[in-house]
Amino acid sequence: MTDYKKDFPLLKDSQVAYLDNAATAQRPLAVLEAEKAFYEKYNANPLRGLYELGMEATDRYEKARDTVRDFLHAAKSCEIIFTRNTTESINLVAYSYGLNNLKAGDEILVGIDSHHSNLLPWQMVARQTGAAIKFLECEMDGSFTDEAIENAVTPKTKFAAVTHISNVIGRVNPVEKIIEKIHGVGGVVLVDAAQSAPHIPIDVQKMDADFLAFSGHKLMAPMGIGVLYGKENLLNAMSPFLTGGEMIESVTREGAVFAELPHKFEAGTVNGGGAWGLKAAIDYLNSIGFEAIEEKENALTALAMEELKKIPHVHVIGSQDPKEHNGILNFTVDGVHPHDIASILDGAHVDVRAGHHCAQPLLAHLGVMVTTRASISFYNSEEDVLRLIEQVKNIRRLMGYDE
Amino acid sequence: MTDYKKDFPLLKDSQVAYLDNAATAQRPLAVLEAEKAFYEKYNANPLRGLYELGMEATDRYEKARDTVRDFLHAAKSCEIIFTRNTTESINLVAYSYGLNNLKAGDEILVGIDSHHSNLLPWQMVARQTGAAIKFLECEMDGSFTDEAIENAVTPKTKFAAVTHISNVIGRVNPVEKIIEKIHGVGGVVLVDAAQSAPHIPIDVQKMDADFLAFSGHKLMAPMGIGVLYGKENLLNAMSPFLTGGEMIESVTREGAVFAELPHKFEAGTVNGGGAWGLKAAIDYLNSIGFEAIEEKENALTALAMEELKKIPHVHVIGSQDPKEHNGILNFTVDGVHPHDIASILDGAHVDVRAGHHCAQPLLAHLGVMVTTRASISFYNSEEDVLRLIEQVKNIRRLMGYDE
Repeated sequence: MTDYKKDFPLLKDSQVAYLDNAATAQRPLAVLEAEKAFYEKYNANPLRGLYELGMEATDRYEKARDTVRDFLHAAKSCEIIFTRNTTESINLVAYSYGLNNLKAGDEILVGIDSHHSNLLPWQMVARQTGAAIKFLECEMDGSFTDEAIENAVTPKTKFAAVTHISNVIGRVNPVEKIIEKIHGVGGVVLVDAAQSAPHIPIDVQKMDADFLAFSGHKLMAPMGIGVLYGKENLLNAMSPFLTGGEMIESVTREGAVFAELPHKFEAGTVNGGGAWGLKAAIDYLNSIGFEAIEEKENALTALAMEELKKIPHVHVIGSQDPKEHNGILNFTVDGVHPHDIASILDGAHVDVRAGHHCAQPLLAHLGVMVTTRASISFYNSEEDVLRLIEQVKNIRRLMGYDE
Repeated sequence: MTDYKKDFPLLKDSQVAYLDNAATAQRPLAVLEAEKAFYEKYNANPLRGLYELGMEATDRYEKARDTVRDFLHAAKSCEIIFTRNTTESINLVAYSYGLNNLKAGDEILVGIDSHHSNLLPWQMVARQTGAAIKFLECEMDGSFTDEAIENAVTPKTKFAAVTHISNVIGRVNPVEKIIEKIHGVGGVVLVDAAQSAPHIPIDVQKMDADFLAFSGHKLMAPMGIGVLYGKENLLNAMSPFLTGGEMIESVTREGAVFAELPHKFEAGTVNGGGAWGLKAAIDYLNSIGFEAIEEKENALTALAMEELKKIPHVHVIGSQDPKEHNGILNFTVDGVHPHDIASILDGAHVDVRAGHHCAQPLLAHLGVMVTTRASISFYNSEEDVLRLIEQVKNIRRLMGYDE
């Protein structure tokens, strides 16, 4: 298997088996150097200065936007809005589209596998507009049946918030099918791609998503930069969300004329360094290619699942097919609290997440309160996975069980 | 004069006289290395991981918050909210405090010298609540008289949005006096400290500000990190603005219980690397000290103003006292458009800003449409200022005037 750890300063000389990639990725040197170079060579306030340095900063910021456009296979760069993270992207749509377009009598369909960040903003919209939240329910393995989709969508479904890959289940959801169905009743769909963007190719046009959000930091970019994709006609019809500098044409004491897309939605000084870092992350990812990424992640996931299945009292959530996990493995160990598991694993420098994974309604639906999550990236090694397994094997014994 | 350029990679071997510091600062190596070190040594999702790396990331994020608390002389760390920039900080208050506390019949007092980011959010609040915007008017030199303050505040003044230092005028406004007056009628005050934070010490308790906002990027920190200070009792009484992961105690299908301060206002993955960079910027600034910063900036500003005054047809906006500029020098040249000035200066590698400086109502009030702004930082040199002067001297001749 190809060793990618050499590209990652934190990992290359480390004893740590970092298996919390679904929370945030590690950053390759190329990304860290790109962001540093932005500040060392091109730093000025993008979109403002008429001088050479200012234009260089603007140029890099807009090049980053073009790179994201290509990454998502969007039609136009003006459909790419830079935000802070997925959460802000979704909130932007909730405030700017949701509050102004939804009303009492309407239904907002939310996938039960939604991260809190794709549920709470819609609960806010429902409270303020009187629209009703309805859930798209999944099976116990996290899958969505055609029947469930069929039953959930009604003529009242004016908006749907769905998840491309759940951070608990790991499966690729049938978003194209859901979108087609919702479009059939005239609804609009937002896709949370926070967990899919690092693992599989995304084509917003093929998918026909109306909105799609992802975070840079899960994709090896610096923290503090995220993306909202929106169809041009929808974004054009929306009011700005945050207001301030750089998103206006003109301002008087009484009001303002707002700028065109994409700047209408990017109030205040933009994160030029972060955008340039995101571009470097996408360039790095493209240099490896999703084919190689998926192959490596699937192989490591298969190894992990095969070994976990051999350990008594261990239960993996979701599909039994490693290819339907995209590196995300949530599991429980009978009689042992995930916090104890994470703590014991930490002692062996195996970093995993324990808790509700910001998906409490899903866990409640699946009948578990908390789980342990190991999330694998292409830059992990077989050794990382085997260390995880070795530790999980001993957990129940360490907690005083006989077997 | 002490040479600080050696600390700044972009400046140290550059021919550029960077005089657009009010738009964004340059970053010292210490800041760039701190952010890189965060990702190379401590990178994990702050506030989430129970493992060592996760706790190290959390520790650094919260240490950065403590540093900001001390920088602002705030009473408690929970009063420091990390945002993206000043604009987002102000929008947070507008959405979360303004929309829920202001109503028809109330007056929102806005300084006429406000940056658009401290005016547009209040225009939005006024539109949505029916409250009226009223302006605190300044004199032609940008100063606020006691009489103007006295006349502007009424028993209806429930909120005031004021500016500590205007990005056009440069003078320190009498915010303590304004705050005292507004508090006398039971109003709440937000101070935009975007331009003051890099230049003068801020003491939110002494000032008695209810809210105060600033951006990291103007203070030599990376882009994408900003701060909102708010009094604990006000923040506690406010609803969250953005909702999502990390700002909740628990979530069900029906609703959520939100987390305590400060996390209630920090939805989604936080910008740990940016916060750590901001800490490094504040540490660097403290290592120099505001006394040395003010001394150097005042000396360079005095030199610039003295020389500009000697040039016919050049008019500096604001006070004639260099100490009342904090490095910000807006000027006009009779018969020459600021865009031409900026362009000519750019040819000599002198970087200045030309335009309305996101303060159109102020410029309209002062009777100018656009100006040229040179903004000086302590890391500028005498040579930078003299190069500016040399170029400005030739501008009218270059544009075809006889004198």
